[in-house]
Parts: sequence; C-alpha cells; structure tokens
Amino acid sequence: MQTELSKQLGIPYALFGFTPFPAVAAALTRAGGFGVLGAVRYTSPDDLRRDLDWLDAHTGGRPYGLDVVMPAAKAVDGIGEAEIEAMIPARHRAFVRDTLAKHHVPELPDGEASGWRITGWMEQVARSQLDVAFDYPVKLLANALGSPPADVIARARDRGVLTAALAGSAKHARRHADAGIDIVVAQGYEAGGHTGEIATMVLVPEIAEAVAPLPVLAAGGIGSGEQIAAGLALGAQGVWLGSLWLTTTEADLHSRALTRKLLAAGSGDTVRSRALTGKPARQLRTAWTDAWDDPDGPGALPMPLQGLLVAEALSRIQRYEVQPLLGTPVGQIVGRMTSERSVQAVVDDLTRGFEKAVDRINRIAGRA
Amino acid sequence: MQTELSKQLGIPYALFGFTPFPAVAAALTRAGGFGVLGAVRYTSPDDLRRDLDWLDAHTGGRPYGLDVVMPAAKAVDGIGEAEIEAMIPARHRAFVRDTLAKHHVPELPDGEASGWRITGWMEQVARSQLDVAFDYPVKLLANALGSPPADVIARARDRGVLTAALAGSAKHARRHADAGIDIVVAQGYEAGGHTGEIATMVLVPEIAEAVAPLPVLAAGGIGSGEQIAAGLALGAQGVWLGSLWLTTTEADLHSRALTRKLLAAGSGDTVRSRALTGKPARQLRTAWTDAWDDPDGPGALPMPLQGLLVAEALSRIQRYEVQPLLGTPVGQIVGRMTSERSVQAVVDDLTRGFEKAVDRINRIAGRA
Repeated sequence: MQTELSKQLGIPYALFGFTPFPAVAAALTRAGGFGVLGAVRYTSPDDLRRDLDWLDAHTGGRPYGLDVVMPAAKAVDGIGEAEIEAMIPARHRAFVRDTLAKHHVPELPDGEASGWRITGWMEQVARSQLDVAFDYPVKLLANALGSPPADVIARARDRGVLTAALAGSAKHARRHADAGIDIVVAQGYEAGGHTGEIATMVLVPEIAEAVAPLPVLAAGGIGSGEQIAAGLALGAQGVWLGSLWLTTTEADLHSRALTRKLLAAGSGDTVRSRALTGKPARQLRTAWTDAWDDPDGPGALPMPLQGLLVAEALSRIQRYEVQPLLGTPVGQIVGRMTSERSVQAVVDDLTRGFEKAVDRINRIAGRA
Repeated sequence: MQTELSKQLGIPYALFGFTPFPAVAAALTRAGGFGVLGAVRYTSPDDLRRDLDWLDAHTGGRPYGLDVVMPAAKAVDGIGEAEIEAMIPARHRAFVRDTLAKHHVPELPDGEASGWRITGWMEQVARSQLDVAFDYPVKLLANALGSPPADVIARARDRGVLTAALAGSAKHARRHADAGIDIVVAQGYEAGGHTGEIATMVLVPEIAEAVAPLPVLAAGGIGSGEQIAAGLALGAQGVWLGSLWLTTTEADLHSRALTRKLLAAGSGDTVRSRALTGKPARQLRTAWTDAWDDPDGPGALPMPLQGLLVAEALSRIQRYEVQPLLGTPVGQIVGRMTSERSVQAVVDDLTRGFEKAVDRINRIAGRA
C-alpha cells in the first residue's frame, strides 16, 4: 500500500491514524502506518512534552505526527475564559442543570476539576503546543479546523515538517492549498468529529481535483481493507482513520461502559450534532445529543461557547458513566467496530482486506 | 467490468442506470450497460405500453429493466384521491398558495392538468404496470420503496425476471432478502431521491455482508470511473447510477432552466428534504425546499399526503420555470455534472475512468 506520499514519509502503508492516545499512535507507527497524536486535550505544554517523550521512545525512530487545533480563535483570543463564560445565556446554563438532574448525574467530588478546557482551542495554546512539537522529530503537523497561519506553515517547511489540514468541501480545500498546506485530508459526512455534509465518495475526488497535485488523504467511513481500497481508488494518496482505534486494546477511554456502547452501536447510531462544540460533529447519538438537537430546547450555542458550557457536564457524565448520556465523537464506521483488538491486529486485518479488495477489483476488470 | 451478475444478465458492463426517460434507458443498454426505466410517472398502462414498445424496439434485443413503486400503500389503497385530499390540513394548503404567490407563480392554463398524480404510488397502479411489464422481455424489476409482495416476486421468478429492491440500511436489506428478492441496491445518503442517513462508503459493505451471497449494487455518489471502482471495491457486483443521466442529451427534463441549474450546481447544493413526497429525498436545494424545511413553517406532511399536496404547485413551478423554486431529485454527484453529453459519451468516460482507477490501485498495491 505505497503511494508517493507514503514513500516520502518512509512508511510501509499509506495508513494514517488520528488518535488522542499516545499508545495507539505509537502502535500504529510501529505497525507500519503513521500515528498522529491529537493534542487538543493537552492544556499544559508539560503534559504534551511528557507524552511526546513517551511516543518518541516507543516508535523506534519511525515517523509520527501531531494534530493541533487552531480555529479562527482570534475572536476569543486575548480574552479570558471568565469573559467568555459571561457570554453564556442563563437559559442554557439552566438547561444543562435540568438535563443532568433529570438523569440523576452526581456532582464532581470537591476539588476534582472538569477535564476539558476551552484553552486547548485557543490559538495561544495551540502555539505553545507547536513550540513543544518542534522540539521533537514530528514529521507531520495536522490542523483539524481551518488553515494554519502562514508563519506556522513556513516554520514547519523550514524544518522539513509536512503540514496537513482537514476539509469538508472543495472550497475549504482550495483555501488550505492557497495557504501553502502540503496535504489535504478530505473528511466526508460519515466521519466522526467535525464534518460537513458531502459524503466521502463524492468529496475525495472533488478535493483531489481541486488541489492537484497536492496529495489528499481520504477520511470518513473507512474501517476495513475494502474501504481503504475504495478511498485510494477515489484518488487519495492514503487514508486517515480515527474512529476505528477507539476500541483497540491500546485506547484508554476511561470508561468500560463507553467501550461497550461503541462495540454495540450500529452505523445508524451516530448523529451529526452541535451538542459537543457548537459546530456539527458526528458522535454517538445519546439522550444528551437528543436534548440539544430538540427543536423545543434552547439549541446549542456557537463555538466556543457550547464547549465551555458543557465541559463540566461531560466530565460528570463520563466519570459516573451515566448510560443514557454517555457518548463520544465517532463515525458511522462504529457499526463495524464489534470487538476489542490490538492496533497490530487491526492493521493486519486492514492490509489483508486491502489485498483481497484489489484481487476482487482485478477479477472484475478482467486482469486476474 | 464483469461480475457474476453482469454475466448472468449478459451485459458487457456491470453498470445499471435508473432513469425516467426511455431514450436514456435505451441508450445505456445499447452502450453496454443496463437501462432501468422508472415507471412512477406513468398514470395509464397504455402510456407505459407505448414507451416499452419504443424501448424494446431501440435496445436491439439487449436487456433492460423497469422500476415500479410499491410503497406500503395498503393504508391508502382502496380509497380514492378525493378521500386522501380531504386529509390535508387547510394550513398546509394555505402555505402552498402563499409560497407560490410570494414567487409570482402563475396558475396553469384552463384545462391543463397537473402532471403528477398520487396514483403512481398506489399498489393497484403498480400492479397494472407489472401486468404490462410482464408482456415485455423485461429482465429486471426494481422496487424503489419497500419489498415487492411475495406473489410479485414469485411471478417474476416464474418468468426468469430478476427482482431488485433499494435499501438504505442493513435491516431493510435483510427484510428484502427474507422476502426473496434477487438483488439489493444499497443506496447511500449522498444519492438522489429517497435516501437514508448511512453513506455509501459504510452502507455497501454492511449490506453486502448482511445479505450474502445475494448480489448488491452500489448506489449514491457514483458518477465517475473512480467512483465505480470504489463501489466495486466495497463488495458490490455492479453500480446503480441515477443522477448522472439527467444532463445527458437523451434526457428530456422539459426545462432548459432546470438543465442549466443542474449543470451549475455544486455537490453542496442538494438537500435531503421531505418537501417532495413526505419522506426524506435528496434534491436540489431551492427556495421551495427551504420553505418546507423552515422550522417556522408548517413542515411537510407524511407520504402520500405531501406528494398530493404539492403536485399542482410543482407542475406550475416547472411549466413557468420559476427559477428560485425550480428543482429536481438529484444526488451530491450533481457537482460533477458540468456538461451535456450523450449517454454513450458518458459510458465511454466511465469505463475509461474505471480502467485508470484500476491501474492506479494496482500501482499502489505494487502489482503494476
């Protein structure tokens, strides 16, 4: 499974994996793919440094990447969380309280802070993460929302670090290309997390044509070897998988109940909802997303207010594993995630399945 | 592009095309694919007979199919249109009137009837269409909504006619298989017309596994050779294309303005709306769909009431080519429909593009 891009990066398989778990990223890189660690959850540079130390020590010199979030955060940058907090309407705060009360969600113990902070979404934090990243032999810097600033792209290029950005439309992809990005991740409607409305089947060739000759990675709905073959047939130079790793043995969701929910979910059990961050993001459908998507409710606030509003609530739901409300970003491929396996076992399955799909397409084309 | 199914049908390409236009169906069959004529618009058996006579005379003995609609129509069957009309709330009638007035849509001339009738959606009509169909060497009977009744499947089987049914989920596909259907068309979210929420990338392998060893056709988002390769890599035994034919020279949309709108539309210019029939169907996004999807409006009625309610309005919009309201069912692939070409030219492009995609995947797999 070799493309120009995989050769450039020196990896055996053009198989990129986004994950918040260093152990998953390391295992994927060791298995011949390319692990990309999501940095959004790191609120302190020291925590990131600690995990990059570990990752670097466990990838045996093979390449890995880092995904930072730099949204158009200028609007909220330079003002503190307290000032942003003040923008949240009382009606929305009451709705959070009422929804938690309805499901008997306990308070956090005294002194235990909510795990999630808006700070990870702010440019100043993303920049401090970048400063850390450049101390490590990171080979790819990905950006989940928007194009990275020009100086970041230039800094990466000077150090031989490739930059990638996610796009849900050809228009966004062209904007990334104009900004000087090296790789566009074409992320379809069926993907987990922030997505647009164009499905992977339509989006990948459209973006590949729009930004040619830049390499494109296919993302969304990919969790088997045949789906990898499909993504590559669509013109991608690799595939970008996120959801599939959530049920690997190396992942640490901090909740057995959530893992069980993922293993039991079908492809129809996700929803594209603004409940999590204020922008449409695909996730498990739960009583929590239903409440925010209810036309009779107050509806989600825009980013970044929604994320700030629900941060503590999500911590409580997860800590106490409150079943009806417990969810996570995940794509429609969740329907095929039916057992817990090691990253290596998953990669073996993917590469075997890819070869079988190629056999099949060659038989159909009369070349077998 | 040969699969077990295409060999069974004796066609050079496993390329199925759904179309309401006999000229398109005939041209596709002549070009080596398999034309499937949509019968929903025929309100009289004689009209259908006339077009099947023509189709039969223009396919040179090569195989073609017919698509009838047999929804769970028992609920409204046996009662007349007048009784169904009476179920439509006055508020909804007023909303139609107001929306048309807002856009200055003229009345139909005296004596000119609305083209669309609910009757095409009723089982008694579908059955009279089937009686006609069995007088012709139709090789495939497809059913767009639900499974055909057991006696229809048995009658088809007795005559060596294959049956196919569309499915938007593995559950629906299994229901079709249990009913004794021969082929399942896995139609993804990005498709034109009635669709579910699961994207083609995820849906095709899920359904192929659910109904194996029944053959599955991939539908939704397919309009190029690379998308055909992707659909086949996902485990389909053929592809089912509908939207792509709308801008062929053989299609007759009765509106140049609509053709121009299709040629100009991007992949993001469709919406999955209940405005047309009461069930979610992907179509061009227009001021008409916006009005029905507006949370402050009355919202669409359930099938079959919505179709009956809006039939005359749609005839008026189309007759007078009222630009902001003018639409049609079409999939996200509309973004790649940028020129008018003959069906033969389209098929040539598809087969060439397929071969190139196979070359590409073989290079990636190290087999070239």
